[in-house]
Amino acid sequence: MSNWVYSFGNGQSDGDGAMKSLLGGKGAGLAEMTRIGLPVPPGFTITTNACNHWFKNAGAYPDGLWDQAQAALRLVEERTGKRFGDAENPLLFSVRSGAAQSMPGMMDTVLNLGLNDQTVLGLAAKTGRAVFAWDSYRRFVMMFGDVVLEIPYTRFQRVVEDLSKGKEPRELSVEQLQAMVEKLKAVVADVWGPFPQDPQQQLKLAVEAVFKSFNGQRARYYRKMNNIPDDCGTAVNVQSMVFGNMGENSATGVCFTRNPKSGAHVFFGEWLANAQGEDVVAGTHNPNPINRDGGGNGTGEKAAGLVTLQEAMPAVYDELNALQKRLETHYRDMQDIEFTIEEGKLYLLQTRNGKRTPAAAVQIVVDLVNEGLITEEEAIRRVKASDLELVLRPVLDPDARKKRIARGLDASPGAASGKVVFHSEEAQELADKGESVILVRLETSPEDIQGMNMAKGILTARGGQTSHAAVVARGMGKPCVVGCTEILVDYGRQLFYAGDSVVKRGDFITIDGGTGEVFEGEIPTLAPPTDAGAMGQLLAWADKRARLKVRANADTGADAANARRLGAIGIGLCRTEHMFFEPVALRAMRQMILADDERSRQRALNAVLPIQRQDFIEIFRAMDGLPVTIRLLDPPLHEFLPNRPEEVSTVAKDLGVRTEALQERLKQLHESNPMMGHRGCRIGVTTPEIYNTQVRAILEAAVIVAKEGKDVIPEIMIPLVSMPAELERCRKQVEETAEQVLAEYNSRVQYKIGTMIELPRACVLADKIAAHADFFSFGTNDLTQMTYGFSRDDMGKFFTEYQQRGVIKDSPLAVFDVDGVGALVKMAAEKGRAAHPQLKLGVCGEHGGDPTGVAFFHNIGLDYVSCSPFRVPVARLAAAHAALGVL
Amino acid sequence: MSNWVYSFGNGQSDGDGAMKSLLGGKGAGLAEMTRIGLPVPPGFTITTNACNHWFKNAGAYPDGLWDQAQAALRLVEERTGKRFGDAENPLLFSVRSGAAQSMPGMMDTVLNLGLNDQTVLGLAAKTGRAVFAWDSYRRFVMMFGDVVLEIPYTRFQRVVEDLSKGKEPRELSVEQLQAMVEKLKAVVADVWGPFPQDPQQQLKLAVEAVFKSFNGQRARYYRKMNNIPDDCGTAVNVQSMVFGNMGENSATGVCFTRNPKSGAHVFFGEWLANAQGEDVVAGTHNPNPINRDGGGNGTGEKAAGLVTLQEAMPAVYDELNALQKRLETHYRDMQDIEFTIEEGKLYLLQTRNGKRTPAAAVQIVVDLVNEGLITEEEAIRRVKASDLELVLRPVLDPDARKKRIARGLDASPGAASGKVVFHSEEAQELADKGESVILVRLETSPEDIQGMNMAKGILTARGGQTSHAAVVARGMGKPCVVGCTEILVDYGRQLFYAGDSVVKRGDFITIDGGTGEVFEGEIPTLAPPTDAGAMGQLLAWADKRARLKVRANADTGADAANARRLGAIGIGLCRTEHMFFEPVALRAMRQMILADDERSRQRALNAVLPIQRQDFIEIFRAMDGLPVTIRLLDPPLHEFLPNRPEEVSTVAKDLGVRTEALQERLKQLHESNPMMGHRGCRIGVTTPEIYNTQVRAILEAAVIVAKEGKDVIPEIMIPLVSMPAELERCRKQVEETAEQVLAEYNSRVQYKIGTMIELPRACVLADKIAAHADFFSFGTNDLTQMTYGFSRDDMGKFFTEYQQRGVIKDSPLAVFDVDGVGALVKMAAEKGRAAHPQLKLGVCGEHGGDPTGVAFFHNIGLDYVSCSPFRVPVARLAAAHAALGVL
Repeated sequence: MSNWVYSFGNGQSDGDGAMKSLLGGKGAGLAEMTRIGLPVPPGFTITTNACNHWFKNAGAYPDGLWDQAQAALRLVEERTGKRFGDAENPLLFSVRSGAAQSMPGMMDTVLNLGLNDQTVLGLAAKTGRAVFAWDSYRRFVMMFGDVVLEIPYTRFQRVVEDLSKGKEPRELSVEQLQAMVEKLKAVVADVWGPFPQDPQQQLKLAVEAVFKSFNGQRARYYRKMNNIPDDCGTAVNVQSMVFGNMGENSATGVCFTRNPKSGAHVFFGEWLANAQGEDVVAGTHNPNPINRDGGGNGTGEKAAGLVTLQEAMPAVYDELNALQKRLETHYRDMQDIEFTIEEGKLYLLQTRNGKRTPAAAVQIVVDLVNEGLITEEEAIRRVKASDLELVLRPVLDPDARKKRIARGLDASPGAASGKVVFHSEEAQELADKGESVILVRLETSPEDIQGMNMAKGILTARGGQTSHAAVVARGMGKPCVVGCTEILVDYGRQLFYAGDSVVKRGDFITIDGGTGEVFEGEIPTLAPPTDAGAMGQLLAWADKRARLKVRANADTGADAANARRLGAIGIGLCRTEHMFFEPVALRAMRQMILADDERSRQRALNAVLPIQRQDFIEIFRAMDGLPVTIRLLDPPLHEFLPNRPEEVSTVAKDLGVRTEALQERLKQLHESNPMMGHRGCRIGVTTPEIYNTQVRAILEAAVIVAKEGKDVIPEIMIPLVSMPAELERCRKQVEETAEQVLAEYNSRVQYKIGTMIELPRACVLADKIAAHADFFSFGTNDLTQMTYGFSRDDMGKFFTEYQQRGVIKDSPLAVFDVDGVGALVKMAAEKGRAAHPQLKLGVCGEHGGDPTGVAFFHNIGLDYVSCSPFRVPVARLAAAHAALGVL
Repeated sequence: MSNWVYSFGNGQSDGDGAMKSLLGGKGAGLAEMTRIGLPVPPGFTITTNACNHWFKNAGAYPDGLWDQAQAALRLVEERTGKRFGDAENPLLFSVRSGAAQSMPGMMDTVLNLGLNDQTVLGLAAKTGRAVFAWDSYRRFVMMFGDVVLEIPYTRFQRVVEDLSKGKEPRELSVEQLQAMVEKLKAVVADVWGPFPQDPQQQLKLAVEAVFKSFNGQRARYYRKMNNIPDDCGTAVNVQSMVFGNMGENSATGVCFTRNPKSGAHVFFGEWLANAQGEDVVAGTHNPNPINRDGGGNGTGEKAAGLVTLQEAMPAVYDELNALQKRLETHYRDMQDIEFTIEEGKLYLLQTRNGKRTPAAAVQIVVDLVNEGLITEEEAIRRVKASDLELVLRPVLDPDARKKRIARGLDASPGAASGKVVFHSEEAQELADKGESVILVRLETSPEDIQGMNMAKGILTARGGQTSHAAVVARGMGKPCVVGCTEILVDYGRQLFYAGDSVVKRGDFITIDGGTGEVFEGEIPTLAPPTDAGAMGQLLAWADKRARLKVRANADTGADAANARRLGAIGIGLCRTEHMFFEPVALRAMRQMILADDERSRQRALNAVLPIQRQDFIEIFRAMDGLPVTIRLLDPPLHEFLPNRPEEVSTVAKDLGVRTEALQERLKQLHESNPMMGHRGCRIGVTTPEIYNTQVRAILEAAVIVAKEGKDVIPEIMIPLVSMPAELERCRKQVEETAEQVLAEYNSRVQYKIGTMIELPRACVLADKIAAHADFFSFGTNDLTQMTYGFSRDDMGKFFTEYQQRGVIKDSPLAVFDVDGVGALVKMAAEKGRAAHPQLKLGVCGEHGGDPTGVAFFHNIGLDYVSCSPFRVPVARLAAAHAALGVL
């Protein structure tokens, strides 16, 4: 006969901590704590198998389950000296669900199970606390009615409000409480039937309610989204009650073995005298700090004026302190512990790995290694790579009051507050006056770069995770929320609507780019840790284990230097677009676009040359000894012309052409689908002068910096290739210009020529393309968009609904699409290498900083990834995870 | 020793007709004609191998070549009784290039080689025609100077013009001609050196000039574009001269064994008395018909007033008539024969398969089968599939005078003339008055359908082969030129510029959709053959051999009936967009788009339901017994809203909403890249009411038509799937609605549910998608665009340059991209079939009517293709070609 029930108590335990899938996380923890001799109230766990059996058999318990449960119950009675349903000395239970992974939407807790009209009297007599007993009964009827019998909680609340007349229930008299219990039972009788008096029936109903909740809508949805199988089941934990609310000698609390915000190695926690656990959790009472070292708010400040547990109950505190150390050593990780003190006796109700801020996570694992508790490899495994990005950004003070007015996509983490402005020029004006601004736009374009640079954060109504705003903001390391369709921007009236809020120019808002939330007003933020010591240590350990190299996307010398500081071992993508937006270059570029013949175009481009050369000089200097991959011009030419009608005549005048001529050119260059238009190498083929000028600037810069004694390693990259002949042609052009420059300077610099692989056809024909390439760099942004057939600028229109309806979980622009896009990347890598074994393979899309992507790119044998500087630490850790096989 | 030279003459021939690759097409033809005893002037052919040797060895002749050539020359002297370079009875040669495939840009012809200051006197004395002799010398100096010595022809022309004083050269005196020859030789002396007097040197230089021309730029380009290897070489044909210009007893001409325009089995040709071949070809003289049956213009009309060869030289005509019959029987195809009559003796100079119109091609092969000359299979092999499309369209009268003003893409074949209009409403107005109009637009949108329908032809400045204009025009079978970037449309002033022409509203133009040309004024067109008897016969033979089935794309009952007439065995793509453009439906659709909640949307859609139902009823009736694949709504919703600012307020008023509300909605729906936006199944997922309404209309129509006793086979198709979950969800919706309708009607109709495969990701995940599909229909238009990453609407901006620069030959939207897109289609077909062996596989992109595509789809085992009705015959023939392995 199967074992459906596992007992624990008084140092004896049928199960242990390794049996998570059978006993659930909570059950395994209780078994383990009991096993190692910690003071855990006795109880038993009904296994996840029982739950699965129950579902497979239309709600029938497996043979023997109930008998085993009765035996376990007898054992608890023995261990506690109390009896279930006994009118003199009643044993009461808490009943909790507990799957291997915690799951929102599953049944939480029923306390005080076993109380009825008789046992309540016994509890009162035995404890000598009639108010306590009747208040416990009141709580039980409400909880049981709500979570087991599924009667709307508000109906009970109304009764309590009516009868308590502004007092706390436990301040009422016994008679008042008895009357309240009668009314509450009447509610149950009204909806469900007479309140079940038989404790065994109560237990059976509660166990079944736990089972049922496993198949509730929210839990099912959560499993689907997280790829948790539907047959993992939930366990049911039935544990004898202890009471923290039996007078001033009783208490309850939650503690952490280290500070969960900073990671500092200080025992930290909160407690409440004469209270039950839910009072701490619900936040209805203000708890006190357990000690003066840890403080009450995680910052280590003295908790002035508050009574600590250490002072109130020194012996119990010492015992708790000893136990928490033991638990941390046992679990080899920071623990989050629930405890109750019943009339001076300490009980532990739960322990689990404590949640922590990203910064604390890093600090804790590094400390644990230094304390000899875990290995370097374990430290690496334990930190979620994506959390590292958050370590570098300010976060919202979790204790501040917030009014959320909208939510968009979490494009670039970090929190920022500032005055709303709608135009880049205004952002600059206000920033010049020292004000913090948030730039709010329908979407941004390259002309907004300056304004974005001056803003503390960016909010756009349109666009996805790799929209212009998102990409640029991440590059700048600036908080950014995009695709916020809940706001309605009205440039004309200089305001935006968000639900029932109207936010005008100059009003303060706060955005959290890590969650996509937009809040009213100014909310204090916490600065990121200035000391990156622990992170530096962790990443050094990671680098030793990683095979995949990490480069950064950086467009300027400053970016490059920053990337290098963050550990990038090269630039994987230097976009050259911005160099054309420098005012002198932009004017020349516009002249070039309006020119009719090659000579005039070349003349205009000659004005751009020194500007680009200077930019490349700065980048090459910053990257001495490291490779720099430079992408030749990618966007369509119309991006360099004014896109607002009112600007056209101004620009035309500035260029000395008729407004009509400029309008005509704009019309000619207009594209229905600019993403799929005349851009990338298509410009290189049709207007070779542009690429030639860029190549000349690169090579001249390389020669100049090389003569300074620096090691320059330029890699010239041709974007948007879909036909081998395009690359063949562009490569020839690049080589001709490069060799010409080197001959003029009578110098020699090694350079490579390669291509972006960012169109599906380039993947399919990778072998033929490889014949003309020294390297491939997968542009996974465009590749993802083309493979799915959606544009990042427009996907917001349906993607949120897709996520809400459960069609897809993550945006494939944020989390790499291994099944679809991945198959194409793998095909291309294999074909490319087969045709050209020395081919260097990298990634320069945003997925270079996405752990899912990094793992995949490691697995298919790519050489490097490149990402925004602020994601370099993420990628370095993810690369180590990939090498260690961490999923 | 290799054989570098092949002789022919007097019924003896070293080679034969099968030796095309060694002797070139022309040389093999001369050998074969000689071999079968036809009167061919003797000569010899230098092989293609010799040419290749010459290139490989830096211009050195292979050992023995020149000796062999001298021996062959001696043989010609024997056979003709004349001697090369002899001052009394000189032998003269023509020298022509001739590769296995004719190649533009290669050297054409040098006539009269062997003439010099001495032999010209011999020729004059021997023939007694001094003017003839000196005029021949004059021609020789000019031709040799031009094509062999590469002296600009204009320099010679100027001399001739100066000295001939308005007369034909042969009308000059001997002295005048001698003076002219001296001047011409002086031109040569000036540029090159003294005119070569040694006939052997002349021959050597001419042979080398032929070799060199094989590597000329144009020939190389042509080989690259047509995948002809560079080492195929050209042969050189050296043939003794005969003269059609030796008096009234001499003549020259060209004849066809059948009428090359109609294909009628009538001997047909033209001749000129006392003339050389070039006089006929150059069009400087008006030739006469050879007989009265054939007529002079191919239409069989009597050539009134002109002297036929039959009348002028009845004996020679009879001989020619006998020979042409023999040649056709020998070559088993219609022949194009060049002949010369020298003083009453007939010589054949060349025979080759004659060029013919598409209509003639069909007629001829069917006749040849019926005459027992070729097999059905040969008939099928001989007709180019793409030509069948042209058979159904009017063509420009080839004899009419034309002034071409621009050239765009040949989007939909056929020629049309009409008055220029720029707006659809105007097209309708004028057409209502019975006028022919050509609709000229920057590009068309669904709102232009009505206007396109009323126009004789469509011309757009933008767009590619599958732009809206192109696709719709092909569907309508209407001539269309798109992407005509050479025109500049000014809607404001109601005119367009094309080069130095200004074409105003109301001016006549003519477009040829088969060539992409635009002409000034009205040009007469020839009607297509009304009797499709021969085509019907040919296609019946083709169907017997084809495996791949052919369906048509058709959106209305009328289209469907037409498709069925043209042999489609089903509808592979019924687009439902147009059904929403019907005025009542459009208004309802707009109301739906502006509605805020599902109920209002459903109410609006209820107005659309009966309209769609009626459309489906008509289609199902027309397709009784054949499957009809219906694609649910595909375009983004903003396509249904007005796109011209001036319309917005009108439409808002009509809908009873504020203009601002409509503008707001327009702004919300605006997309940066609508091709990659919120469309296809993305609408199905986010606004299920639309698909549900369409499915209801389909099923209700199916039930109604089935009750009429017809066999209804609906196949419901979900567009733009990139994720299996999308199809899973849409399929469930479709099934629910369909079953509901069938239950309401208490009826049963079998229906299938499938999906378009038109995004790269759908190809990669075809196995997972197949789990939810009864069929796949490859949408190769979108798939091609996404795979390449260009949009048909924007590709015009760079594609013409790509073609001009030799980066690519054909647009992959016109000729299927086997290497790139094909690899994805093949992958998807294999994955789909592996996961779901009963999966039906078809194609509904324009490539369903492209022979390259059809061959590929046959080879990878698809079940059917679907194309515009007018391309159904093309696809049927191409399917037979594929089955027969015709490349």
